[in-house]
Amino acid sequence: MIIILKQNADKEKVQGLLHSLEEQGLTCHRSDGAHTTIIGLVGDTSRVDINSLRANDTVEDVKRVSEPYKAANRKFHPDDTVVTVGEARFGGTHFSAIAGPCSVETEEQIIEVARAVKASGAKLLRGGAFKPRTSPYAFQGLHAEGLELLLLAKKETGLPIVSEIMDLSHLELFRDVDVIQVGARNMQNFEMLKALGHCGKPILLKRGLANTIEEFLMSAEYILAGGNEQVILCERGIRTFETATRNTLDISAIPLLKHHSHLPVVVDPSHAAGIPWLVEPLAKAAVAAGADGLMIEVHNNPKAALCDGAQSLTPAQFDSVMKKIKAQLAFEGRML
Amino acid sequence: MIIILKQNADKEKVQGLLHSLEEQGLTCHRSDGAHTTIIGLVGDTSRVDINSLRANDTVEDVKRVSEPYKAANRKFHPDDTVVTVGEARFGGTHFSAIAGPCSVETEEQIIEVARAVKASGAKLLRGGAFKPRTSPYAFQGLHAEGLELLLLAKKETGLPIVSEIMDLSHLELFRDVDVIQVGARNMQNFEMLKALGHCGKPILLKRGLANTIEEFLMSAEYILAGGNEQVILCERGIRTFETATRNTLDISAIPLLKHHSHLPVVVDPSHAAGIPWLVEPLAKAAVAAGADGLMIEVHNNPKAALCDGAQSLTPAQFDSVMKKIKAQLAFEGRML
Amino acid sequence: MIIILKQNADKEKVQGLLHSLEEQGLTCHRSDGAHTTIIGLVGDTSRVDINSLRANDTVEDVKRVSEPYKAANRKFHPDDTVVTVGEARFGGTHFSAIAGPCSVETEEQIIEVARAVKASGAKLLRGGAFKPRTSPYAFQGLHAEGLELLLLAKKETGLPIVSEIMDLSHLELFRDVDVIQVGARNMQNFEMLKALGHCGKPILLKRGLANTIEEFLMSAEYILAGGNEQVILCERGIRTFETATRNTLDISAIPLLKHHSHLPVVVDPSHAAGIPWLVEPLAKAAVAAGADGLMIEVHNNPKAALCDGAQSLTPAQFDSVMKKIKAQLAFEGRML
Amino acid sequence: MIIILKQNADKEKVQGLLHSLEEQGLTCHRSDGAHTTIIGLVGDTSRVDINSLRANDTVEDVKRVSEPYKAANRKFHPDDTVVTVGEARFGGTHFSAIAGPCSVETEEQIIEVARAVKASGAKLLRGGAFKPRTSPYAFQGLHAEGLELLLLAKKETGLPIVSEIMDLSHLELFRDVDVIQVGARNMQNFEMLKALGHCGKPILLKRGLANTIEEFLMSAEYILAGGNEQVILCERGIRTFETATRNTLDISAIPLLKHHSHLPVVVDPSHAAGIPWLVEPLAKAAVAAGADGLMIEVHNNPKAALCDGAQSLTPAQFDSVMKKIKAQLAFEGRML
Repeated sequence: MIIILKQNADKEKVQGLLHSLEEQGLTCHRSDGAHTTIIGLVGDTSRVDINSLRANDTVEDVKRVSEPYKAANRKFHPDDTVVTVGEARFGGTHFSAIAGPCSVETEEQIIEVARAVKASGAKLLRGGAFKPRTSPYAFQGLHAEGLELLLLAKKETGLPIVSEIMDLSHLELFRDVDVIQVGARNMQNFEMLKALGHCGKPILLKRGLANTIEEFLMSAEYILAGGNEQVILCERGIRTFETATRNTLDISAIPLLKHHSHLPVVVDPSHAAGIPWLVEPLAKAAVAAGADGLMIEVHNNPKAALCDGAQSLTPAQFDSVMKKIKAQLAFEGRML
Repeated sequence: MIIILKQNADKEKVQGLLHSLEEQGLTCHRSDGAHTTIIGLVGDTSRVDINSLRANDTVEDVKRVSEPYKAANRKFHPDDTVVTVGEARFGGTHFSAIAGPCSVETEEQIIEVARAVKASGAKLLRGGAFKPRTSPYAFQGLHAEGLELLLLAKKETGLPIVSEIMDLSHLELFRDVDVIQVGARNMQNFEMLKALGHCGKPILLKRGLANTIEEFLMSAEYILAGGNEQVILCERGIRTFETATRNTLDISAIPLLKHHSHLPVVVDPSHAAGIPWLVEPLAKAAVAAGADGLMIEVHNNPKAALCDGAQSLTPAQFDSVMKKIKAQLAFEGRML
Repeated sequence: MIIILKQNADKEKVQGLLHSLEEQGLTCHRSDGAHTTIIGLVGDTSRVDINSLRANDTVEDVKRVSEPYKAANRKFHPDDTVVTVGEARFGGTHFSAIAGPCSVETEEQIIEVARAVKASGAKLLRGGAFKPRTSPYAFQGLHAEGLELLLLAKKETGLPIVSEIMDLSHLELFRDVDVIQVGARNMQNFEMLKALGHCGKPILLKRGLANTIEEFLMSAEYILAGGNEQVILCERGIRTFETATRNTLDISAIPLLKHHSHLPVVVDPSHAAGIPWLVEPLAKAAVAAGADGLMIEVHNNPKAALCDGAQSLTPAQFDSVMKKIKAQLAFEGRML
Repeated sequence: MIIILKQNADKEKVQGLLHSLEEQGLTCHRSDGAHTTIIGLVGDTSRVDINSLRANDTVEDVKRVSEPYKAANRKFHPDDTVVTVGEARFGGTHFSAIAGPCSVETEEQIIEVARAVKASGAKLLRGGAFKPRTSPYAFQGLHAEGLELLLLAKKETGLPIVSEIMDLSHLELFRDVDVIQVGARNMQNFEMLKALGHCGKPILLKRGLANTIEEFLMSAEYILAGGNEQVILCERGIRTFETATRNTLDISAIPLLKHHSHLPVVVDPSHAAGIPWLVEPLAKAAVAAGADGLMIEVHNNPKAALCDGAQSLTPAQFDSVMKKIKAQLAFEGRML
């Protein structure tokens, strides 16, 4: 961490500042320039509060030099983390596909979709029981009943299931869910992250609409710091000025996350695009950029879907995408 | 709502679509152009799922014509809502200031700050007991003890208190808190919004970092739809490419929110700026743009603050800002 | 185009508006709802000024239904445009790589780089003679001498050349340049676009930092409208809140541009990323998403580069990327 | 400037780097931490190319500590620059209003508007002769004839005039124009900025849609570096994800620009908002935040305007806004 002092900062106050930093176990290296004095802070700065430092009268600015995350940091954990759920494996050389409807609607729907996506090669079934909807008047999901239908589809097909949690009070309902999804809007729901750090289940953590890669890894850090090492990161598009797509898929996030962290990265091209015919090119791009998996929305009847039908593939479209993805992975020497 | 049909859409499928829309109680007006056919949907479209419509094979695009919010909509509620808490009143001709530290730290701190901000004219004391922090290693607040200290400061000064809730499981702890704050990161925590729609207390709802004004009003709609009409909207800056400020204060949001909704609007210049000397010009701009209140961070010792000291004013600085705000309000014929 | 009338709009004024629109050759279809009246405008609306319509007292809002571009629109030109320059071909089934230094510095440098990138398979040599630099104190390029050095490298290697124009007054200097590049900062320099519509040379048009896909195609439309059909679109990243990369590569722009337009699309992963090790995964992602070409910065000595060395590949790194891209294209049944 | 070295950077290469920096007249201060080594660079770093430094094998990252602009920097020019044009004065304690139509259309129009805005207190007449339009099919301005009509209006009313230049080849046509405007799309048209640094006229420089405050000041630096000290900065809204306004007025830019620079700052609420009824609250907010002037679009018949009618005020609306602005300035002890 680097502290840039104000021009003409009071010498005694600067001494006081240095003293208090040294009391926190840090070493201070000072460079005096003609116009600017810089203090280099050496030691464990992850607990130093940058904003309080900035409030000091003598301080012009403070800049971080090292990443604020540790457990998620590849520097300290060079080997890839592999998350395994049934036959699905994410990370290292392993790639898996997650598929299913935006929301669970009926027994027929979820079982039909589960069978279809399994046949096409998906290894994990997704389905929303609790749905975050912008409008209070929109369909909010079947709740506990939705989770039961998912479990029925799991029983039928053997596919493990992933579903989104929207409030900690529902955690008990997720006891038989294989992977708990934290949605984009809850990426910084820190109480939820802390609790999931102790839940003993793999977590699929989606990036928030306007969160940086560093903030994304800091949210993963919350879960890891609680002792849960099974975190799958999911890039699903960020909010920008462009309105031609629902969100802007940040394709660079894949290599960046894998560079800075050991955690597996999956991509959700369905939510990123919001347009079904964009799912295939974005899925292929994600694989080419090094993603460890894909999460794709599939509905047996998109135009009658109670939620987000616009971006869902039909089972036949999904099958076609999966054939291409399998060939691409084989070309790259990776296995689905 | 307007539906734009695809070129050469199958006539029978279009008939099916129109039929299903009319079954939902809507009337369809059709305009056939040389290249494009448009369907104008007339009736209550707030429950129509745009994304499912878009998934229909015959549909090129769908555009909303009227706002999707009703209870928050000024069209249906032309009179300003005034929210009253103790001597604080927000909305109509009423303006109030909320002030206090980012986080409650000690009894001495919160009582000293409470006395100071009351003396300067604040009518509501803010203080965080549960703190959303990007890093799991940062100070997270005093939790229940923090709320008790706030109540002590209320007893000492008579100022009602506002504090942020971070998880619904803490709701019982807020039974004596006067106003419950929903933070920017929870603006789309829909389970929380639903529960707060039944809590019987005024809610201070902060705009999310990357949420549009329409989404902001839809989140207010969740609370209003539950029967709670005491919602104060808080503009606190949005995330943009500019890094010179922590967030970009969206000053236009004030007149826009007041145009589209009857709810009061307060502005938080401290979080928008992240720089203490910007608080005064932004506060004055907010008043000039028509805000119904301000929320300002004040700490008796910013450089020792456990959280966000960088943006806090000292009591003396706050007093100076308040003097200018009072004069400005008096000039505009409004009363603090 | 759809006009949404204000509630209680004056009937006579509405008649006047409809009359004036019909005088412009448009047909007006009216839908009267309980709260809202919509006018569907049918005919050629590309010359209708939306903002003037919005200024009409009776108008609440105006929405476009069809794209405002024509010459660039795939609807009216279903076949892919192929741009050919020497052995380089962009579009249809053709893919080509453009490579070279950010700026031309010396004869040795440009010839060494030109030979190296040709050997690795590049078909077009890039090199900046006029450099847009944020700072007036930074190296601004060799200007006319830089173009001469590029032509020397062309003579040596046979590679056609592309270079950026920064002001129309330099156009005469570009008479022997094969492809003229319009940089991101000039994407909406409309006087330049108009002039290049008559220059008889292929244009490489880069997307502006904060321009939508529709604006990008409207800028191409300026060139096409002047009679020049040889336009290559270049996605090079957009500006967002994320700071981990210099820009955010909008990977979705590739399939979207190719869907809406017949023009070829190349991707510049060097400027998008600003980080050399990101060039390979982004280049592969661009190919997977359907790009018609790549433009990559290569410098024989990046750390001594006078401009943007940070993102340049060495010739050896470029060769390694090209081997992978060639294999990927072959796998997809496309030829370099 | 601070250089952060890579972990395990080669010692000899680091020595080479330090040596080459010292040859540029800089002093290097080194801090060795457990995991990270930092080099503090002391001296004039405005000519150091950050990107070339980043390309060095031994360098992990480089961070600026001081601003890259000098002539525009308040640190080196503490006194406010005041730009005077006729009776208009911008900066210091002086505030002036600029008003007029988006584009000059006819003699009657421009003279009528000029008389009206003068009567309401405007001190400078704006009017576009060359119009940057997204669409090649939209009205592009009257060009030379438009400038002549503006000069006629100047003759009639005595108001000096400001008009936008779109290409340097038109510079000769601007010989009698009092202030040359550089539009948002040309803020980084560096060839234009350089030429205007020698033109001897005041420049109104608009902030680009997606440019940071630092980039804005660097563009001003181009003009100042050429010897022209008469630069007026104009904040006109930035591009964000919010679509309720045409752009997002960055109100914080006013105090920030005035803090970091000595140049006057005016605000264009018309382009920021794109909605006429937002002009008044935004104008008042700009004054409250410390702006040195306003630029407002006024048209005698907005609904018949050939360009941007949607955001123009009528002369009567402008008069009403000006009355409020005058009162506000008087309250603040400033004079119009």
